[in-house]
Amino acid sequence: MPNLTPGRIRHTVVFTPHHAPGSTEEADFLAAGAALAAIPGVEAFEVLREVSPKNGYRFGFSMEFADQAAYTAYNEHPDHVAFVQGRWIPEVADFLEIDYVAHDRD
Amino acid sequence: MPNLTPGRIRHTVVFTPHHAPGSTEEADFLAAGAALAAIPGVEAFEVLREVSPKNGYRFGFSMEFADQAAYTAYNEHPDHVAFVQGRWIPEVADFLEIDYVAHDRD
Repeated sequence: MPNLTPGRIRHTVVFTPHHAPGSTEEADFLAAGAALAAIPGVEAFEVLREVSPKNGYRFGFSMEFADQAAYTAYNEHPDHVAFVQGRWIPEVADFLEIDYVAHDRD
Repeated sequence: MPNLTPGRIRHTVVFTPHHAPGSTEEADFLAAGAALAAIPGVEAFEVLREVSPKNGYRFGFSMEFADQAAYTAYNEHPDHVAFVQGRWIPEVADFLEIDYVAHDRD
């Protein structure tokens, strides 16, 4: 993972589904999330397992956008909106969005 | 950012220093944190600015380790211990550690 290029945005969300750990429902939810990688502008998409004992979250998605316009287009894309409404809201118990850009050492 | 190789660990911490935004003290703290990159086993070290309006954190550090042994050695390294005791605890107001590994799609 090289340093983020200035202007790029790394959008991440760490979360815990309502589903039982290891369940078919959980796997299906993660697969539905992974399909977000196909939305135009999404780069470096990762499905991650959260393993720190210092928080209660279980998974993460991470992706990068070339710029704010690409991030905005993703947020507004019908496939993203449908995922949020149809899967994320009903199936996720807890989450935190964290977005990073390069630190410019001002 | 390619997908994490199985076995690798991405250790991240999102945080807010006590210091005034843009202050010399804040810059000095970030520089001290950046020096953690020199500890053996630390790879892909990044100093990041947190920009999501959905949380109150202001910065992040991200780094990767080849395996748990490298992560443990970092945690126990005297330079890391000294940073935590001498800088992190007195200078950080709020933080959350998030550690990721590749999701193996079990």
